[in-house]
Amino acid sequence: MSGNGFEATASGERAMAMLDALGAISDAPDNLTRLYLSPAHRRAAEQVRAWMEEAGCAAHIDAVGNVVGRYGPADGPVLYCGSHIDTVIDAGRFDGSLGVVAAILAVGELARRGIALPFAIEILAFGDEENVRFPTSLSSTQAIAGGYDPRWLEVCDDDGVTLAQALRDFGGDPALIAQLARDPAQALGYLELHIEQGPVLERADLPVGIVTAIAAAYRADCLLRGEAGHAGTVPMGLRRDALAGAAEMIVAIEAIGARHEGGVATVGRAAVAPGAVNVIPGEVRFSIDARAPSDAILAAMLAEIDAACSEIARRRGLGFTQAPFMRAPATPMALPLQQALADAARAVTGQAPMIPSGAGHDAVAMARLCPVGMLFVRCAGGVSHNPAESVTREDVGIAVAVLVAAIAACASGHGAADH
Amino acid sequence: MSGNGFEATASGERAMAMLDALGAISDAPDNLTRLYLSPAHRRAAEQVRAWMEEAGCAAHIDAVGNVVGRYGPADGPVLYCGSHIDTVIDAGRFDGSLGVVAAILAVGELARRGIALPFAIEILAFGDEENVRFPTSLSSTQAIAGGYDPRWLEVCDDDGVTLAQALRDFGGDPALIAQLARDPAQALGYLELHIEQGPVLERADLPVGIVTAIAAAYRADCLLRGEAGHAGTVPMGLRRDALAGAAEMIVAIEAIGARHEGGVATVGRAAVAPGAVNVIPGEVRFSIDARAPSDAILAAMLAEIDAACSEIARRRGLGFTQAPFMRAPATPMALPLQQALADAARAVTGQAPMIPSGAGHDAVAMARLCPVGMLFVRCAGGVSHNPAESVTREDVGIAVAVLVAAIAACASGHGAADH
Repeated sequence: MSGNGFEATASGERAMAMLDALGAISDAPDNLTRLYLSPAHRRAAEQVRAWMEEAGCAAHIDAVGNVVGRYGPADGPVLYCGSHIDTVIDAGRFDGSLGVVAAILAVGELARRGIALPFAIEILAFGDEENVRFPTSLSSTQAIAGGYDPRWLEVCDDDGVTLAQALRDFGGDPALIAQLARDPAQALGYLELHIEQGPVLERADLPVGIVTAIAAAYRADCLLRGEAGHAGTVPMGLRRDALAGAAEMIVAIEAIGARHEGGVATVGRAAVAPGAVNVIPGEVRFSIDARAPSDAILAAMLAEIDAACSEIARRRGLGFTQAPFMRAPATPMALPLQQALADAARAVTGQAPMIPSGAGHDAVAMARLCPVGMLFVRCAGGVSHNPAESVTREDVGIAVAVLVAAIAACASGHGAADH
Repeated sequence: MSGNGFEATASGERAMAMLDALGAISDAPDNLTRLYLSPAHRRAAEQVRAWMEEAGCAAHIDAVGNVVGRYGPADGPVLYCGSHIDTVIDAGRFDGSLGVVAAILAVGELARRGIALPFAIEILAFGDEENVRFPTSLSSTQAIAGGYDPRWLEVCDDDGVTLAQALRDFGGDPALIAQLARDPAQALGYLELHIEQGPVLERADLPVGIVTAIAAAYRADCLLRGEAGHAGTVPMGLRRDALAGAAEMIVAIEAIGARHEGGVATVGRAAVAPGAVNVIPGEVRFSIDARAPSDAILAAMLAEIDAACSEIARRRGLGFTQAPFMRAPATPMALPLQQALADAARAVTGQAPMIPSGAGHDAVAMARLCPVGMLFVRCAGGVSHNPAESVTREDVGIAVAVLVAAIAACASGHGAADH
């Protein structure tokens, strides 16, 4: 630990108080649910704007509902820093919000210390990261990054309200979205602090880690067709059991995930038809979710999964189809920003574990605009998207200190500032 | 083929006409559904009684709804022959009904040929074999066999009607059930002809087969508990994936079924929780159905299944429980009746394939009373419990000829008649 101990504890305490306040702003009476462009989102955005102003920023809520706080000159190069304030249904208090609160506290700390910056900092509190209310993909982040898809404006929520209408109801303006896109020539980088949502830091007994890449991801629905039959009268040798075939595939998929560095492969859904104790399964539908720290590793995993499933299906006389419904390339973190965060983490904690992120983040969209870097904070049990989400005050304090040090490093000519 | 060709064809034609007539008697307008003690069951029973009387029997519908046709003396030794006339929902025309029709035609043929019998024949058309309407177990057969459980009278159908009330509505009488039990000292044996409900005869290109035993059977619900988690952020080495564990068990259970002579093992149901594409499964429930031609083989299979599942659960850190909800011993067919049927099959078709039955039949309950024997008839694709159930007229003719020859063999001092 460096000499930041006292400040870290103080900022950890302040962060927890802010997260408690933000966590109390919900659309649901009994849990934390704050969907994009909802009344609770509006109230949370106004609270965040107020905190940004207290920290010394010029702040506003933009045309898609993002809260933007600018610290430093109104023109010229910018370092972006933030995360999101929308949540899943029945959420925890830290996913997203922690990154926004940490950015505000970091800016406040820079101001307090009087550190001169050769760039502005823009704190961004995005509104549409969880994509629960509308079937978009990081729409409010893409508005900043210049990747907004105008077709999103026509999609509806469960009540039939279009995104365009929801924006107007919120106080936004669809006509102004195109103007939100930032100039890549002025965008130095984007730093995001986020809970890990996994168990790696906890197992390693470390408070923070530096993200190397946001994983390439693939999802597919698989359908396996065999032949239903009487579980008592069809001899084993005459069967085409879809579930036994699926089981063999699931075991193979798990093994393929395990033998690729940083890869994961999961079958999360499986449904058996007809699904009776005394009937040989004729059909099984199951999902595949595969992720890897690089596109090349994911491609290798998918080729192996395809080969294994095809061989199993052929040998068992089963029909097998795999319908992909999502494929996203990996988002590598910029090396200078990894370096700045690692140096900062080493200075504050003595260690700088490098870990891939299996989950997606606003940084995926921001990478369209500029170099991105992420800092993960240990969370209890790796639990997220759940009221049981938990981080310690001490870890939050350390994370804010690392973020401050990383921004200071960028300012002194290291990291993204000279990309 | 023996010289029975013409008679076999004629009785096959007659049988198909009777099965068509019986198949038209349904409680449902659009499919064949004839549940125990329903109006359609009553009409079918009256039709069957009329046919029994035409064949020369003294016939009645008994206190539990069985149709009983006695051919020959009212007292003294009896050879039972029959099957059931209740069906599953949306049934085929042959399961059960074929055995009743074949017994009627066999008696008619014996009468036509003037074959003298040293015993009476009782044709039995049981009413409660499928156990769809009430949660009983071959109740109407057990009434004859002396194994009726009086608690069955209090069970209810889906409309809340007790079995006792349904019996009274049908014209039966719960108070008279105890008197239906036959005297084991006079019961020579029970012969049942039934569609195979499996693909073995069709694959072997043979019309009939002799059953060696009705399989011992076991059913259980299994619960596997692991730990749910984020499919992207929990490394493969830190997972306790309940579905991957279940998949390994399902593959092992299949292999255990395959390596035991005549054994079958099936996982027909599997349900995954929470069941989302991006969540590692925390819990899986699945069923086991295992059957074997002897109790010893089944016991060996179950010990291997238990050992394999326990090892997999231990190695993966999963909780595993197996809750059995059915266990039935094997019902071996009496060797003299197997012999009589095999000799008859050889005389009529030139071959006598011996096969185990993986499905249960009325013969399981009748084995409480007397030696039992069964003849299987080839059915298309092994399909049963389905409108697509199909047998050929030729095969039915052959089967009736085999049944006649087997009864004649019993009468001439072979087979069950001298047990």
